[in-house]
Amino acid sequence: MLLSKLVGERTKNGPADATAASHSLLVRAGFIKLVSNGIWSLSMPAKRITQKIEAIIREEMNAIDGQEVSFPVVMPKDLWAESGRYYTIGDEMVRFKDRGGRDMVLGMTHEEAAVQFSRDAVNSYQQLPFMIYQFQTKFRDEARCRGGLIRVREFVMKDAYSFHTDMEDLKEYYEKAYKAYENIFRRIGMKRVVAVKSDSGMMGGSISHEFMLLTDIGEDTIVLCPECGYKANMEVATTVRKTERDAVSEPIKEIFTGDSHDIESVAELLRADKKKTVKAVCYFLKGTEKVVVCFVRGDLEINESKLTKILMSQIVPADITGSDVLHAGNIGCYGLKTSGLAGVYYDESLRGANNMVAGANKDGYHITGLDFDRDMPGIEYVDIAKVCEGDVCPVCGKPLTLENGIEVGNIFQLGTKYTKAMNMTVLGKDGVAFNPIMGCYGIGIGRALASIAEESHDEKGLIWPMSICPWHVSLCSLRPDDENVKDTAEKLYADLQKAGVEVLYDDRNVSAGYKFSDCDLIGIPIRIVVSPRGLNQGTVEIQTRDKAVCENVPTEKVVEFVNKIIAEAMEKLK
Amino acid sequence: MLLSKLVGERTKNGPADATAASHSLLVRAGFIKLVSNGIWSLSMPAKRITQKIEAIIREEMNAIDGQEVSFPVVMPKDLWAESGRYYTIGDEMVRFKDRGGRDMVLGMTHEEAAVQFSRDAVNSYQQLPFMIYQFQTKFRDEARCRGGLIRVREFVMKDAYSFHTDMEDLKEYYEKAYKAYENIFRRIGMKRVVAVKSDSGMMGGSISHEFMLLTDIGEDTIVLCPECGYKANMEVATTVRKTERDAVSEPIKEIFTGDSHDIESVAELLRADKKKTVKAVCYFLKGTEKVVVCFVRGDLEINESKLTKILMSQIVPADITGSDVLHAGNIGCYGLKTSGLAGVYYDESLRGANNMVAGANKDGYHITGLDFDRDMPGIEYVDIAKVCEGDVCPVCGKPLTLENGIEVGNIFQLGTKYTKAMNMTVLGKDGVAFNPIMGCYGIGIGRALASIAEESHDEKGLIWPMSICPWHVSLCSLRPDDENVKDTAEKLYADLQKAGVEVLYDDRNVSAGYKFSDCDLIGIPIRIVVSPRGLNQGTVEIQTRDKAVCENVPTEKVVEFVNKIIAEAMEKLK
Repeated sequence: MLLSKLVGERTKNGPADATAASHSLLVRAGFIKLVSNGIWSLSMPAKRITQKIEAIIREEMNAIDGQEVSFPVVMPKDLWAESGRYYTIGDEMVRFKDRGGRDMVLGMTHEEAAVQFSRDAVNSYQQLPFMIYQFQTKFRDEARCRGGLIRVREFVMKDAYSFHTDMEDLKEYYEKAYKAYENIFRRIGMKRVVAVKSDSGMMGGSISHEFMLLTDIGEDTIVLCPECGYKANMEVATTVRKTERDAVSEPIKEIFTGDSHDIESVAELLRADKKKTVKAVCYFLKGTEKVVVCFVRGDLEINESKLTKILMSQIVPADITGSDVLHAGNIGCYGLKTSGLAGVYYDESLRGANNMVAGANKDGYHITGLDFDRDMPGIEYVDIAKVCEGDVCPVCGKPLTLENGIEVGNIFQLGTKYTKAMNMTVLGKDGVAFNPIMGCYGIGIGRALASIAEESHDEKGLIWPMSICPWHVSLCSLRPDDENVKDTAEKLYADLQKAGVEVLYDDRNVSAGYKFSDCDLIGIPIRIVVSPRGLNQGTVEIQTRDKAVCENVPTEKVVEFVNKIIAEAMEKLK
Repeated sequence: MLLSKLVGERTKNGPADATAASHSLLVRAGFIKLVSNGIWSLSMPAKRITQKIEAIIREEMNAIDGQEVSFPVVMPKDLWAESGRYYTIGDEMVRFKDRGGRDMVLGMTHEEAAVQFSRDAVNSYQQLPFMIYQFQTKFRDEARCRGGLIRVREFVMKDAYSFHTDMEDLKEYYEKAYKAYENIFRRIGMKRVVAVKSDSGMMGGSISHEFMLLTDIGEDTIVLCPECGYKANMEVATTVRKTERDAVSEPIKEIFTGDSHDIESVAELLRADKKKTVKAVCYFLKGTEKVVVCFVRGDLEINESKLTKILMSQIVPADITGSDVLHAGNIGCYGLKTSGLAGVYYDESLRGANNMVAGANKDGYHITGLDFDRDMPGIEYVDIAKVCEGDVCPVCGKPLTLENGIEVGNIFQLGTKYTKAMNMTVLGKDGVAFNPIMGCYGIGIGRALASIAEESHDEKGLIWPMSICPWHVSLCSLRPDDENVKDTAEKLYADLQKAGVEVLYDDRNVSAGYKFSDCDLIGIPIRIVVSPRGLNQGTVEIQTRDKAVCENVPTEKVVEFVNKIIAEAMEKLK
């Protein structure tokens, strides 16, 4: 490819609102072009990268017996009504009427389509297990798009669906898919990826894993144990909290605390450690005015995902100002009138605690000397607190660390949620019909590209791993007006391509500085510079983008030398 | 791939409403699955075919310097308002509001996106010409879907857009694209494809060609000259009509024709040749009640496309019953009161005609003896008649033939319609900004697949060309319970795949008849049968789907033999 003809504007400055390096660099290098909020066009180099990512994913999916298929972008309401998701998914799903007045949706994911596709074709347990997958455009009307290709509305996703006779078979396949995912991320050159157990959210089902790229700009928090390798999404992470009881339990005393309503100010007023306070947090069950009150140790936060799971209901933070029963800022577990409440929950962090400060359920007052064993006998404790940096690993007991991450892939054990709802049955060995058990497995292609850019760049530009680079070589001719330079560059361009090397040839009549800065920005792994000075020695300069290699190589050795660099780099990504 | 695991129901009967063989066979072979009217899922074999078609198209597009990019499926209204098409395209375009209340559309084509993508990035004539293309899902809310994948609502299209400094450069590139298209159709194994000049419809621009597959189920009519190769879509086809004047012109006479209102009955009543009658056809200018009256020789039909072009306005057939001026069934060109009419047009077929029968503009009466030279002096003639089978070729004068065809590709010289409307300018050599001239080039992938199926099948099933077949070989083991058969089949399965041959292995424990009929239905080019009888001789049976080859081949020669068949078939499709 000639750089002079490559469509894609390279610019000095990225978008003013770009907070992610990948966003800024991909725009600056002319890889992506905004069409509408969260909707992008991809230029040739970005498209080439996605094709290479897709090819690697395809290989790994085929290796675990995947059948590549294609489901439509536009689907009828009926399908999504069958599963029930037409009604449970909110504004993220685009709904419209076709010219005949029929309700249609844009696919956000394709569980329904996969079941519709399979349910007539598969009748016997002998046809199980099987896995079908596709690369297809999805549209999710995200409220907050961000980070260029990181969080968008339209994107191509590889989504796969497996069907099984029983849980054991699903689990066995799930393991294979897990390994295929590890292979994929390694092969596309993503380094800091960890698989964490996660909450399966709207997908339904039970066990699921998110593959997270650890990076500062990630919106998700991941809990890691550097010692034993325990990993979990914050939503489901656990810890072990041992309460250190004071030797002597003081009696309960009511104390005037006036306007001190939050943990900070109460702890300061009473010179108490925040660990010796009890925090109350109130929620409404979503869509109702029913209040749930949660108590947690004052230094901790409520994990709303865990709470949602226990309640089996969505929640929203409750503003209880003006309530007769609940005294905002002075709610306490001791002496709380629970009638009229939808529920009261006590976090594990309070088990056995004594000499605690808590609200007195009376405006302007708190109590001290609360002993959960003595004063709150018979209550049940649940795990509804967020894990903190330094908390104890639930597996090995060593301190946990927290990191930010971007979700780059996910795998779910779906169970029979969709096959049951959509009435897909197959005949078992015993002649009895059953609903196949499903798994599903997703990777967003554009996000993968952006995540690699996020992980692999420097202040000058992008640095693409060899396995997914848009071209292997950036060929720069300095002084293209020099006959010798021009002829040599053109010969190398032809010879390299003949040898299967992908070359972006900078044939423009611009300065060396201009060429080098474009070259660094685009991030092609190998740069070859053809200059009059080098040619006097019969050599060209070959440098890798990561600076590991920088050599003057005789022109006749270039193809061999380049192929060696490529082979070595690919070997490392195997 | 094991046939036992392939998802896709093979059935004896196709859909009851299928009129196209490809529709019926693709459903019966389990290649496609209906999701909603005009919306389909593709199973693994269909997906493999589309991938091979796409790979061939990609090679040909890259060979003419195409840059593969990606534009979005969902676009904002703004883009389509800029070009004006948001307002001119009707119900076929899906419009919806996103969660923020912004108007969005589903892309039917991507001229607007291509200009938006390029207009900031390209500033100088030196960057021209360039061509960008993609494979992307389009949605057109067709009122009448039909023929399985032939006419659908959702489909993947390869669409390409080229940008040029001047018409000469566009024409040069257009020629290259034309040749690339010929290469594509030849390579994917479509045989009866002809390129015809066409009306460019909603695309704007002037010169355009449609690539038509000649087939009985085609909805378009193509005019062909077997002698000189003249080809044109019926919409724009012309002919040369010489009027044979009678030696003596009779005087005009008014004759009572009563209820005889159409050409058939008037000609019969008056014992006149239809060629000696004048037919009147009325239209409304679309959206108005303004009437246009057209006169054409009685044996011919009005070509509404030609008329629309002359009028530069859409038309609809007019029902003029009850009109004071126009006497339905008795309208004639002689003595017609033209005031109040939007226009009167006379087809070339009437030039110089004499002794003609025409309406008398009076209920129940016609006239005879009309001589256009004598009685209608000074009128202008235009070409608004359809060409008929046997009409004279406008190039060589030999008889024309008519054939039905499916449009399988199209190429357009767009001009500056979009670059002007969307204000894309680049600086010329002379420092003056200009609007680049565009060309665009489309091929529907699903329709290509279906068209090949339409052209290449027999009563037993599909017959795929080697270049796009889902698998090269269908490996059938008869009596898979026989150890020797099973081992040989499994060894061949492994050996063939190792040699790069794609194999669908029918490992099912079903009868030979069942296997053979599935095999014929799916249409894989080469069938290998492993049976106890053959193995007694140390051979397997190798047969091609088209029956050109049927031999018993020693098991150790199979890979070589198969590779030879593949190579020879591919050579023919080069």
